[in-house]
Amino acid sequence: MLTTRAYAAQSAKAPLAPFSLERREPGTHDVLIDILYCGVCHSDLHQVRDDWGGATFPMVPGHEIVGRVARVGSAVTRFKAGDAVGVGCIVDSCRDCPSCRKGDEQYCDTGLVGTYNSRERDGVTPTYGGYSTHITVDENYVLRIPESLPLDRAAPLLCAGITTYSPLRHYGVKAGDRLAVVGLGGLGHMAVKLAKTMGAEVTVLSTSPSKRDDALALGATHFAATSNKDTFKNLTGRFDFILDTVSAPHDYNAYLNLLKVDGTMILVGAPEAPTPLAAFPLIMRRRKLGGSLIGGIRETQEMLDFCAKHGVASDIELIPIQKINEAYERMLKGDVRYRFVIDIASLRKA
Amino acid sequence: MLTTRAYAAQSAKAPLAPFSLERREPGTHDVLIDILYCGVCHSDLHQVRDDWGGATFPMVPGHEIVGRVARVGSAVTRFKAGDAVGVGCIVDSCRDCPSCRKGDEQYCDTGLVGTYNSRERDGVTPTYGGYSTHITVDENYVLRIPESLPLDRAAPLLCAGITTYSPLRHYGVKAGDRLAVVGLGGLGHMAVKLAKTMGAEVTVLSTSPSKRDDALALGATHFAATSNKDTFKNLTGRFDFILDTVSAPHDYNAYLNLLKVDGTMILVGAPEAPTPLAAFPLIMRRRKLGGSLIGGIRETQEMLDFCAKHGVASDIELIPIQKINEAYERMLKGDVRYRFVIDIASLRKA
Repeated sequence: MLTTRAYAAQSAKAPLAPFSLERREPGTHDVLIDILYCGVCHSDLHQVRDDWGGATFPMVPGHEIVGRVARVGSAVTRFKAGDAVGVGCIVDSCRDCPSCRKGDEQYCDTGLVGTYNSRERDGVTPTYGGYSTHITVDENYVLRIPESLPLDRAAPLLCAGITTYSPLRHYGVKAGDRLAVVGLGGLGHMAVKLAKTMGAEVTVLSTSPSKRDDALALGATHFAATSNKDTFKNLTGRFDFILDTVSAPHDYNAYLNLLKVDGTMILVGAPEAPTPLAAFPLIMRRRKLGGSLIGGIRETQEMLDFCAKHGVASDIELIPIQKINEAYERMLKGDVRYRFVIDIASLRKA
Repeated sequence: MLTTRAYAAQSAKAPLAPFSLERREPGTHDVLIDILYCGVCHSDLHQVRDDWGGATFPMVPGHEIVGRVARVGSAVTRFKAGDAVGVGCIVDSCRDCPSCRKGDEQYCDTGLVGTYNSRERDGVTPTYGGYSTHITVDENYVLRIPESLPLDRAAPLLCAGITTYSPLRHYGVKAGDRLAVVGLGGLGHMAVKLAKTMGAEVTVLSTSPSKRDDALALGATHFAATSNKDTFKNLTGRFDFILDTVSAPHDYNAYLNLLKVDGTMILVGAPEAPTPLAAFPLIMRRRKLGGSLIGGIRETQEMLDFCAKHGVASDIELIPIQKINEAYERMLKGDVRYRFVIDIASLRKA
């Protein structure tokens, strides 16, 4: 076993603090990764606080992992020591159900093995995430980071990037389509960059009028403040697609009415409580409301290659791991542009 | 003008009673129809009682109209006297918006002209429906009833038929797909027949265990009572599609969980009040919730031809118009298998 430095929460109420854990020696098909950077996803905060229930402690969060290969198992063919690699939200799955066979491991019938706050396929061994110096992962769940991407700014692509790229592709957003992105946080800012790169005309809808300049700088053509009631009148029937990244409660019906006939609104943010939905906005214009969860391994690689080709990466604020609890407090206030990324060098020195 | 016998409600609280109205003489592009049969749609009841607001009185309901052509205008090329024809929910639209150009007149940008409880395109002249002896309609909104279809049993195809056929086609239900039909009323019984004919494996989900035999006789392979809580456990992740015909309040989330990954639930029934919707059933399995409204003229003709080819028609109970108020009372109790159709001969004799 490989003793590994990490930061963990010992309980739902506890701040993150230094922790030591054991990683497995790389097996035949495993890749041992020296972690360099780990993005801080809003879901890290939800899970550390057990907002969704079922959390297991101690918990080492982090599923936006970028690093370099340290060693590989004897059967590994796709990676070698020194390669720049990434690990996202999935470190294993059943590999045999229809979803896994299609490369949609995120919808695995038996449940995916999450990078942290999950159990390995033995159902027993807890998984620990990327707020740590090393991780051992089966090569089938490891991504190649193209060398042209800056490694720190690539880390958030492993969750925020694929969570927005996958629905844009799956639901068929194409050049010339009018897309509204609801919410300009970690997910929203990636959605704007990716959709703009795909040729869509992007409008950002945000509660904060102060985000107008950022929205336009990120690539949006239009911005509308949802605090202004006229927004919902002025934009009625305007969009082919709406990508909704907001996990705070909001009125789906008001947004659905902004779609054209046959338009689609896609949820990637999940409010904790159900939201009242009227049937009429869907029926009267044949609109659809859909969801999407991260993305499969193959599609994540496709997204990384797309980002490298087009020079897309996350806007980040690099922090030492010792600032993680402060970063969480700032995230709760929406005070981050647009993703904290932990410089894991700070954990090696500590 | 052509004086026409009808039945009308004089106000939202009044029963239907004999009424006389004037139909326009057929213009250049018009078809004058001797009405033979008119189906009784649940929405007739909603509109007569002003359940949805905005009703105008006197109101002559009826948008499942079948009859024979009496006379045609000088420019009419598609119909001649004696032809069996139908009129559904739409008697005009702008003909110029993207939806009209695509043949999706039901989604006309300027609003369709409804067969009753609506205004002609002049914005003034009220429209009166098929509980009457004659109607004058532009030939572009008249359907041809194939001679092999029984005229009385064809009438409900003009609304219940197209309302279920259109989403089955639009959302891509195909042979071998597993489809659940929620609710076995006028819409539901047509959905079962049509989907079965398309080769889908149909399961009926109904609150009434007593409808099992009917469901199977209509063509369903399976039946499950939704009053049985185990139904929602046993059928989790089973269906490619759910066609939801119910307009009483019900829990969308429970039904969404019955869909496979990438499955779609389609609403054609509209509860009056919004329903709490959780984001997780959509996100975790990339499911979709969509709507659909009747169908366009071209697709309605396609549906009628499909029904003629495959011997599909509605199960009906033929009534004289003098029994209409009693029929409404029975509809409120769900006591109809599966559509009342008015024999308009009873109105001519009266």
